[in-house]
Amino acid sequence: MEGPRKCYPPLRRVLVSGGTHGNELGGVYVVRHGAPCLRRPSFSTQTVLTNPRATAGGVRHIDTDLNRCFTLEALSQCASADSPYEVRRALELNQTFGPKGSDQAVDFICDLHNTTANTQACLICDTQSDYLSLHAARYLQSLSKQPCRILLMKRNTPSFSFMSIGKHNMTIEMGPQPPGVIRADVYNKTLRLLQCLLDWIELFNRGAVIPAGSVQCFEVDQKIDYPRDSDGQLTACIHPQLQDRDFEPLNPGDPIFQPFSGGDPLVFGGEETVYPVFVNECAYYSKGIAFWTTKKITISLPAITVTQK
Amino acid sequence: MEGPRKCYPPLRRVLVSGGTHGNELGGVYVVRHGAPCLRRPSFSTQTVLTNPRATAGGVRHIDTDLNRCFTLEALSQCASADSPYEVRRALELNQTFGPKGSDQAVDFICDLHNTTANTQACLICDTQSDYLSLHAARYLQSLSKQPCRILLMKRNTPSFSFMSIGKHNMTIEMGPQPPGVIRADVYNKTLRLLQCLLDWIELFNRGAVIPAGSVQCFEVDQKIDYPRDSDGQLTACIHPQLQDRDFEPLNPGDPIFQPFSGGDPLVFGGEETVYPVFVNECAYYSKGIAFWTTKKITISLPAITVTQK
Repeated sequence: MEGPRKCYPPLRRVLVSGGTHGNELGGVYVVRHGAPCLRRPSFSTQTVLTNPRATAGGVRHIDTDLNRCFTLEALSQCASADSPYEVRRALELNQTFGPKGSDQAVDFICDLHNTTANTQACLICDTQSDYLSLHAARYLQSLSKQPCRILLMKRNTPSFSFMSIGKHNMTIEMGPQPPGVIRADVYNKTLRLLQCLLDWIELFNRGAVIPAGSVQCFEVDQKIDYPRDSDGQLTACIHPQLQDRDFEPLNPGDPIFQPFSGGDPLVFGGEETVYPVFVNECAYYSKGIAFWTTKKITISLPAITVTQK
Repeated sequence: MEGPRKCYPPLRRVLVSGGTHGNELGGVYVVRHGAPCLRRPSFSTQTVLTNPRATAGGVRHIDTDLNRCFTLEALSQCASADSPYEVRRALELNQTFGPKGSDQAVDFICDLHNTTANTQACLICDTQSDYLSLHAARYLQSLSKQPCRILLMKRNTPSFSFMSIGKHNMTIEMGPQPPGVIRADVYNKTLRLLQCLLDWIELFNRGAVIPAGSVQCFEVDQKIDYPRDSDGQLTACIHPQLQDRDFEPLNPGDPIFQPFSGGDPLVFGGEETVYPVFVNECAYYSKGIAFWTTKKITISLPAITVTQK
């Protein structure tokens, strides 16, 4: 039998966004061409190219990473003409689709990303407590014949991503795809997942009771940097045994880096099995991240349904 | 029995270059770390990072594509402080390692590149008439257990690449590797091919007679652009049946592009079977190239040996 149900208001405004990182082209082309597939009867779907200047320039960002500009603190500042472009754009986006944390904010944001890491379909949720988004992710996972993992950002970290200005949210991260490249397989998979997500929202809005259940997630834990010399230059790269193995178990003692100068591989010094993610993501070299470790956790989700009027 | 032999002077100065495109990191790391593996008794091996500013910035180029700056005409111009950085750098490189076409030029340049296309190991030679470079490429191909194709630039086109300032030359193009990423497998394969090349030069210098034979090459023919709208934006991407199929036969009527808006694929309208290369290379979007077609040709190589004193 069902336990107590958690109720959420219907989702009336859904936003699909791409180009938050301007050279991740999956979302850019879905936003440009996908609109006819994204209409559903019970809600409106808007699309937005979040960082149009970076997209036009074929770069990740103009001045700073847009997807780190949406903390409540950052959004409470005033911007001037001298502020970084992405800081100004974040305030503009928050004005249009937020304000973050307010009743006026759009109900659901699905932000589309790509990575050079072999993540396959990866659904990123901001918080353990957003049962609606986790139920949606669980549904997409249940339909997927290919790997489709759920990645959870760390608890108790202020959310900084564009999607966090929506009441509910999910990032679809598809990899591998190089920056500045659009691959048909990545485009097709992204569009398919997105359509399933919108179908689920339609079902939810129409009053379906989404039964309680548990969902396996990978929770982000620690970042591991490349070995570097005193100038900050890499002295080793991801070991072939780790390359392309996102979400596969990495055990203490397993090789993680291959020194360029030859010699023995560097091994993972952790104390327990972890699950690496974003292995060899190009944009993370400059952020000091060779990969993130994650831990497998299981989250129990209560049954949910739409608030009855 | 052997036919007439063609004689070449010994190769005393060999140059290994990387970072001609600053974000193609295979060559960058080979140049930074590979030197201890590149020494041979009969010649000197120098290494150079050809576009250090682009490499430092993590971009393909600063002002213009360095690898298009080495026509004899371009190298005969004077540069000012206002000239594009790569134009100035090309003159500097030509001064140090050329001048192109002169006796002072280095004997062999091996320039290291990467592509987002699935080329695997691809050895690019500038001209059909450089039997020495083609023999070297044929040797590398004969040792390789994985695909290793020889790509020939079109005849009668003025050579514009950095490698063309060497008396003999070869580009090692390894793919796929995203820009801004170094993969261990790509690094290892590149270094292995390079060492075999240097071993071959050592053999040649020591007086080995390299027997006559024929070599199969792919000769660059035509460039095919993406379908675009009136603003120049792509309306279709590489079809899944063409993606990652570099050097595989493409027949008239085969699908080549998938429209973003759905609908039927666009098909190849050529009149004969071709062999596409650089399929979905990221840097070619802005050059109007979705892929190049090539034709398979067989070149007969005479026996070669070193000039006796």
